[in-house]
Amino acid sequence: MNKPAVAVVMGSDSDLPVVKDATDILDQFRVSYELLVLSAHRSPRETHAFAITAVARGIKVIIAAAGGAAHLAGVIASEFPLPVVGIPIQTAALGGMDSLYSTVQMPPGVPVATVGINGAKNAGLLALQILAVGDPSLQKKLVVFKKQQAKAVVEKSKRLEKRRQ
Amino acid sequence: MNKPAVAVVMGSDSDLPVVKDATDILDQFRVSYELLVLSAHRSPRETHAFAITAVARGIKVIIAAAGGAAHLAGVIASEFPLPVVGIPIQTAALGGMDSLYSTVQMPPGVPVATVGINGAKNAGLLALQILAVGDPSLQKKLVVFKKQQAKAVVEKSKRLEKRRQ
Amino acid sequence: MNKPAVAVVMGSDSDLPVVKDATDILDQFRVSYELLVLSAHRSPRETHAFAITAVARGIKVIIAAAGGAAHLAGVIASEFPLPVVGIPIQTAALGGMDSLYSTVQMPPGVPVATVGINGAKNAGLLALQILAVGDPSLQKKLVVFKKQQAKAVVEKSKRLEKRRQ
Amino acid sequence: MNKPAVAVVMGSDSDLPVVKDATDILDQFRVSYELLVLSAHRSPRETHAFAITAVARGIKVIIAAAGGAAHLAGVIASEFPLPVVGIPIQTAALGGMDSLYSTVQMPPGVPVATVGINGAKNAGLLALQILAVGDPSLQKKLVVFKKQQAKAVVEKSKRLEKRRQ
Amino acid sequence: MNKPAVAVVMGSDSDLPVVKDATDILDQFRVSYELLVLSAHRSPRETHAFAITAVARGIKVIIAAAGGAAHLAGVIASEFPLPVVGIPIQTAALGGMDSLYSTVQMPPGVPVATVGINGAKNAGLLALQILAVGDPSLQKKLVVFKKQQAKAVVEKSKRLEKRRQ
Amino acid sequence: MNKPAVAVVMGSDSDLPVVKDATDILDQFRVSYELLVLSAHRSPRETHAFAITAVARGIKVIIAAAGGAAHLAGVIASEFPLPVVGIPIQTAALGGMDSLYSTVQMPPGVPVATVGINGAKNAGLLALQILAVGDPSLQKKLVVFKKQQAKAVVEKSKRLEKRRQ
Amino acid sequence: MNKPAVAVVMGSDSDLPVVKDATDILDQFRVSYELLVLSAHRSPRETHAFAITAVARGIKVIIAAAGGAAHLAGVIASEFPLPVVGIPIQTAALGGMDSLYSTVQMPPGVPVATVGINGAKNAGLLALQILAVGDPSLQKKLVVFKKQQAKAVVEKSKRLEKRRQ
Amino acid sequence: MNKPAVAVVMGSDSDLPVVKDATDILDQFRVSYELLVLSAHRSPRETHAFAITAVARGIKVIIAAAGGAAHLAGVIASEFPLPVVGIPIQTAALGGMDSLYSTVQMPPGVPVATVGINGAKNAGLLALQILAVGDPSLQKKLVVFKKQQAKAVVEKSKRLEKRRQ
Repeated sequence: MNKPAVAVVMGSDSDLPVVKDATDILDQFRVSYELLVLSAHRSPRETHAFAITAVARGIKVIIAAAGGAAHLAGVIASEFPLPVVGIPIQTAALGGMDSLYSTVQMPPGVPVATVGINGAKNAGLLALQILAVGDPSLQKKLVVFKKQQAKAVVEKSKRLEKRRQ
Repeated sequence: MNKPAVAVVMGSDSDLPVVKDATDILDQFRVSYELLVLSAHRSPRETHAFAITAVARGIKVIIAAAGGAAHLAGVIASEFPLPVVGIPIQTAALGGMDSLYSTVQMPPGVPVATVGINGAKNAGLLALQILAVGDPSLQKKLVVFKKQQAKAVVEKSKRLEKRRQ
Repeated sequence: MNKPAVAVVMGSDSDLPVVKDATDILDQFRVSYELLVLSAHRSPRETHAFAITAVARGIKVIIAAAGGAAHLAGVIASEFPLPVVGIPIQTAALGGMDSLYSTVQMPPGVPVATVGINGAKNAGLLALQILAVGDPSLQKKLVVFKKQQAKAVVEKSKRLEKRRQ
Repeated sequence: MNKPAVAVVMGSDSDLPVVKDATDILDQFRVSYELLVLSAHRSPRETHAFAITAVARGIKVIIAAAGGAAHLAGVIASEFPLPVVGIPIQTAALGGMDSLYSTVQMPPGVPVATVGINGAKNAGLLALQILAVGDPSLQKKLVVFKKQQAKAVVEKSKRLEKRRQ
Repeated sequence: MNKPAVAVVMGSDSDLPVVKDATDILDQFRVSYELLVLSAHRSPRETHAFAITAVARGIKVIIAAAGGAAHLAGVIASEFPLPVVGIPIQTAALGGMDSLYSTVQMPPGVPVATVGINGAKNAGLLALQILAVGDPSLQKKLVVFKKQQAKAVVEKSKRLEKRRQ
Repeated sequence: MNKPAVAVVMGSDSDLPVVKDATDILDQFRVSYELLVLSAHRSPRETHAFAITAVARGIKVIIAAAGGAAHLAGVIASEFPLPVVGIPIQTAALGGMDSLYSTVQMPPGVPVATVGINGAKNAGLLALQILAVGDPSLQKKLVVFKKQQAKAVVEKSKRLEKRRQ
Repeated sequence: MNKPAVAVVMGSDSDLPVVKDATDILDQFRVSYELLVLSAHRSPRETHAFAITAVARGIKVIIAAAGGAAHLAGVIASEFPLPVVGIPIQTAALGGMDSLYSTVQMPPGVPVATVGINGAKNAGLLALQILAVGDPSLQKKLVVFKKQQAKAVVEKSKRLEKRRQ
Repeated sequence: MNKPAVAVVMGSDSDLPVVKDATDILDQFRVSYELLVLSAHRSPRETHAFAITAVARGIKVIIAAAGGAAHLAGVIASEFPLPVVGIPIQTAALGGMDSLYSTVQMPPGVPVATVGINGAKNAGLLALQILAVGDPSLQKKLVVFKKQQAKAVVEKSKRLEKRRQ
């Protein structure tokens, strides 16, 4: 397996069932990735060390998932100079509105590319799209993916029509 | 000037004062871009034509700004296979909460890389970070940018300290 | 069966249990309709084709149901010159507040007639009311419907009173 | 002038500056309308009388604008069997979120076709679209309107491009 | 049983399990009441008739429970000149935020005495407090109720303490 | 002047411009009232003393206005056995949503009759309605008030109609 | 056992399962505490007595948990001159947004140190941190706690890595 | 001047007008403090260095103010083992709801003592209360402060009463 260009990190291992949608799509496109539990608040030094060494390890995009006062993506983006994709995790009390605001409302100068609440599949796809900017073969695969996706919708529509007859 | 790799589009020319923060940072990094007014709702065919021809024109990243039921970024992302960065524009009634939800809460399969409400500077920076994945010289400039940004904060802090003495 | 004047479309076949309330009321009034799965984001070309050919097929009203960054009704309304009724689908994270804002907060020039979250029965009724503007017999049926509805409430009230005695 | 098919009502004369966007578009399409101040709460009997006599007066669509606990559209819809379009008025404290919820979250059986907060222009257009279902000449005018609208966006885009050169 | 001074009405018989907290407390204080299902939207004429005849029937306070675009309390308050207590019913999509805003945000001139979401017990107590203004014996009972309530809390605290030993 | 049956209290003298709408309507109906600044948080002992002595002073209804974590109405209601009307004051940051929730979401056993954000006129009217339960002459005045209010709306509607001709 | 320096109070014994996270962490650090049920609204005199006698009993920090119109922490803070930590309890209707605003939005002059919704463990830790300001041995234990916490995250990350191999 | 026990930091010097309420109250109590601009996102290394050296410098409490995706307090709390007080700064788009959630919704294990939006005065007071736990003379001053605060409210009430006579 080649050196991974993507890192997927999450604030708690309880986020894994959501984050799996991101790693599944990366697996499907055969793009390798690092996978870590890192907490901006509980393991700040490991998070810091991870962020400042990522470029040297060949990481091109980091996907970070966290809930509540979700600082993980922002803290990594404070050091990592390439794209950070943030996944706001759904929360029991506020539905993930807290996670979303904490991830997306970054100050000017430090962007986090935020996807929807629990939008891990889209985070994976966004990472693939970012890599595809410099990788024509990956870009082609994404075009095919779009076509298959449209086809799947069309087929569902046809099945619905059949059931009515 | 070389062929632009970035396109910046907005739903209404009234969004221009906000969007300028995105084009300013692109100008600062000497990255050229297309600049258009396109409405997902009022000029749907032009928007569609723009999205399906963008790859052929050499566009690598599209920044789309819209407010309210902000569909522009999503509609472009439905066709464009590379990263779309969405800027939710602040609104009079709901402060931009409507624009944010309409931009970020995309269905699985079609991501929009969303920045904060009116976060146009970060949208420009995110586009630069995406291009930098395949452009080491741009990556270096972004590292320098981060350092200068930190320095500016340190200087503000020193000035504050001086005023107290 | 005569050529349908109503089309009912949904962003995902998982919306069908909600959308059924709309088709049930259309069935009850013996108004025929097209029924399709169409995604503004995953099958944009089919959606576009559907919207621009609807008038020619004799469609007078389109009901569109979608959740999250719900662009389906708006995208159809960008092309279809007659009424589009939008049903915001309830969502796990934000309860459908995202769907509602994405459906109702349309820019000036392109209305979507929005009903409540999961308000599919009302969407069907609104389509019937729209058709009734030019159809006196349908209008009469709607007046009868209103009376039966009132009667049903009165009967529930009486049953409640009886239980107390 | 012929007998009006549209009625435009508002909860308070302070809503007039917003409601004017609805009457302007009706004027532009030369569709005549009744215009009244009616309060579901302060003049309930007049509101009730208005709603039950509207069909007999030839009214086909009613546009109702109100803010806060905005009951006007719903109260009219409880009696009027044809489409009621609701405009939630922006409010000082809650931005119109209260008006929106009070207008759109109707119980099954009594729809209100809700437009965005202060979306009076769209309310007017929706009324026109509803009338156009049975009026081919009005439908043609709406198609032209859509084209001009698209053209206006294209022209704004060109002007923006020129300014950059 | 004497003629009831309180009426308890609800928009749907599905609200009964919540509303029972109001009737239970009225039962506990041996205050009789009318109990009806009335819908501002589905049975508007019955609602109107109820509101304008209530004073003549001896009703002094009306408790009205409704959810969503909850207009019931407001519609009754538009006619009834004595206190109307509104109970916003919890809703699936928005948790009752819609019911609360629709009940409490009344325009100047027509108050609704609103209690918390699903706060039926408090609605009953508020009705009792209102009657107690002119009924010293009821006032005394309410003072006793307050004392017992405090005592119950103290006892729970003591039980908790015991468990710790 | 006779002994006041109403007390109007506010958390801060900066609330006076809002609270004036309550005292104005009481003045208009010639109902006398106590007027105090009392803070649940900054002057808790005075607030407590006020609440436990109010019945003895002849107070029948207390109107309490406060903003933010608005505890004033609730704290008074914890001691006062007759109706407490709460006015949530609009706030700079959250528009009064904080004041509203803090006032209305009372636990079972201790109601606060809450009016809309800044709804001081309705608070005054609600106090009058409460007193009118045992005061037929006041009740008559409230019926007249309702009629004049309706008349004022009708006149505004006529003036609007005239302007159009 | 030595005289407790911490008091943990809750508005209802139904809050105990949440509050347990606070007492567990205090137990873990062997810091003793009072534990009471106190209601700002249902047992106001006991609450008041508790607050004004707490300093004399040697209490240094009070943790107060309440939901809805959560006044408990604020009412205690109105009398107690040392830190009050507020835990907003999650609620069925509004998720705890009501509890949070009622606890945190205190007027200038009377702070409540608010933790997240249901954040009882953090409330306990905050109390420990406050005591640690004057207690070097407790401070050391908190430093050790931080290290163990980081270690636990690192271990979870390693376990995740192993599972992938 | 003695070595400061309090540090006051803010994410941007534009927060200074709000933060001044915190330093004013510290000045009033003659408690010295460090004052810095530190950005969790733009100057992460300086922020990190500040947090890990604070204990050694004698800092006992840190007050941190930030807006939007407000990570400053949380990032400092990840390293600093003593109390961190967070001030959520009001924001243009979301009123500070974003800042509040980002500050208060911390994961179990790392508390931030959050005050209200722009609640800088209360942040200063909370820092004083924390220091007072181990400083009886400061505690006495806080008791006096509470009394004066109550007195000021009473005087405002008297002035209001006089104006009425």
